[in-house]
Amino acid sequence: MSIGPGGSAQASGKLVLAEGTTTVGVEHAMRTVTAILCAAGCPPDISAMVAEHLVDASLCGVDSHGVVRVLQYAEQMRDGYLDPAGRARIFRTERGVTEIDGRGGIGIPAMALAVDHVCATARETGVALAPVRNVGHTGRLGAFAETGADAGCLVLIIGGGGRTSWRQVAPYGGRKAVLPTNPYCLGIPGGERGPVVVDFATSMVAGGWLLAARAAGATLAEGSIIDAEGRPSRDPEAYFGGGAILPKGGPMGYGLAVMAEIICEAMLGPVTTEVNWLVLAVDTTRHREPTAMRSVAEEILAELRACPPAAGFERVEVPGERERARRELGRARGIEIPTRTWTAIEALATAAGRPA
Amino acid sequence: MSIGPGGSAQASGKLVLAEGTTTVGVEHAMRTVTAILCAAGCPPDISAMVAEHLVDASLCGVDSHGVVRVLQYAEQMRDGYLDPAGRARIFRTERGVTEIDGRGGIGIPAMALAVDHVCATARETGVALAPVRNVGHTGRLGAFAETGADAGCLVLIIGGGGRTSWRQVAPYGGRKAVLPTNPYCLGIPGGERGPVVVDFATSMVAGGWLLAARAAGATLAEGSIIDAEGRPSRDPEAYFGGGAILPKGGPMGYGLAVMAEIICEAMLGPVTTEVNWLVLAVDTTRHREPTAMRSVAEEILAELRACPPAAGFERVEVPGERERARRELGRARGIEIPTRTWTAIEALATAAGRPA
Repeated sequence: MSIGPGGSAQASGKLVLAEGTTTVGVEHAMRTVTAILCAAGCPPDISAMVAEHLVDASLCGVDSHGVVRVLQYAEQMRDGYLDPAGRARIFRTERGVTEIDGRGGIGIPAMALAVDHVCATARETGVALAPVRNVGHTGRLGAFAETGADAGCLVLIIGGGGRTSWRQVAPYGGRKAVLPTNPYCLGIPGGERGPVVVDFATSMVAGGWLLAARAAGATLAEGSIIDAEGRPSRDPEAYFGGGAILPKGGPMGYGLAVMAEIICEAMLGPVTTEVNWLVLAVDTTRHREPTAMRSVAEEILAELRACPPAAGFERVEVPGERERARRELGRARGIEIPTRTWTAIEALATAAGRPA
Repeated sequence: MSIGPGGSAQASGKLVLAEGTTTVGVEHAMRTVTAILCAAGCPPDISAMVAEHLVDASLCGVDSHGVVRVLQYAEQMRDGYLDPAGRARIFRTERGVTEIDGRGGIGIPAMALAVDHVCATARETGVALAPVRNVGHTGRLGAFAETGADAGCLVLIIGGGGRTSWRQVAPYGGRKAVLPTNPYCLGIPGGERGPVVVDFATSMVAGGWLLAARAAGATLAEGSIIDAEGRPSRDPEAYFGGGAILPKGGPMGYGLAVMAEIICEAMLGPVTTEVNWLVLAVDTTRHREPTAMRSVAEEILAELRACPPAAGFERVEVPGERERARRELGRARGIEIPTRTWTAIEALATAAGRPA
């Protein structure tokens, strides 16, 4: 079994799980995740918001950013890495920039606040941005870009500044891990099927995949990593033994990663918790009347959907559409999750005092 | 001989030319290119500005965007595709957006105007953008991003909307060319050696490389193109026979290309000449005091330069530095250019009435 560069489960193949999966109703999953977060000290409104975000990611099929993350957040709050009560706020810096301070909490509410703020400001001024700092994990970025696009905005999110804690990726032409996996996410109103959302790490694989591949005893797709001597490898152990992930698209992924590090640390300032973020929005409706924009977008996207598929692919996908289609299916059916993961989540909820 | 995915001549190997190269003094190259443009009907100031831009690209070693382009521009003006007298202007659209109208001329002055405008506005407001429309070829984007970064700004340039004229690139998972090579360029103030400039096509190779490879009888690096049946190929003829270039980094290059098409056509409006552009600037000095920013950027970049090189590389490069180093060397020595290309340029200048 092989794990490919992220972005499309269609092409990259999912991890084959040793045990089976469990289907969990959306309401039950929400209540369970909320109970864990509340017990860890998160205020009820923040707990509910984070639970909704994680369940939505699971519904969308983005398992790496789904309900499994509540285990990580609970541990990080227990360890003091995250402040459960940290409530994101907007403030104005000494230099006059409106910034989102996550106050050391889970980054999901901070990112939601940032996107709401920049979209509202962009509607007044045409374009707006906000740094987001002092946050833990920010969840599935695509969800925020989709929200902004639903509000008529082009949204750009760039994460970086974490290289001293997350040396995972080799620079192009280098053989040692220096950079983090610096994610980028863009969203924009699309055609008849809703926003286009592009969400990627600038590395061939995300760190989570390596852990998953190691746990599953799986090999990686060719060209994903190098070992400690700089030799190509497909063995996840080569990464954990001093190797590095390669940048995606060579100089392109490397260039975007360097840019993200300079923007998010040299420009925005020191990283306190995980990484810093730049969130930017453009009001698309100032440029073109929304129905005209939608109609041209639909023309472009329809051409892409109609492109004959390459070998090994069922169809050409429009970025963002698969997640929404899965979400629609999943709402009635519930989320599918590895049984081992769900058992751990249930156990944590029960330990937290929730009636089993 | 092999032509690799663009971005680094170090790794991709340059075309080996059948004949030799000629070294041309900077002043002489400027006068020659200016004379051709003037004779084609360009006003003297525009001719001088375009000549300076093209000679600078040649100096920087970006031959694909250097003085060779004057042959294309002269032909496009002769054919009526470009208006030699088209002078870029700033105007306010009915919807209240400040836009750059290139008036069908060479796009270089329009792009320079756009970057000046968005950087000046960003200094007042923090962040600004401008669409650029109705333009021909816009030259080497990195030069504009560098100018903006020298002025203290983070600059982002996105080009798109040309798919109906430039069907070159297959979508990820597809086997027919649907998209153009949608370029992105970012620039930001860097460390002690100046701005970081990241400039890439979202496709594995640019269209110009395929023409060059065909002319030279060269093969392409693996994974660059597919033939008309969707099979991997290294033969440039496979592209010209109905094949397609593959997106760079799979879903990443594809996603960025789709985004560029939606932004630049669905949002900005119809393309009249080549492609449309979105130019955006952020005033970095509002976020952090410039000497502090430079010092942190230098720390990041120094770590990258110190990374041990991978096999086949001399060193890890910081994007933007190689071009500046070459420019410095070239200023005294002149530009090096294939003899056949320079002979054609000289002949055109002589035909244009310039004393040989």
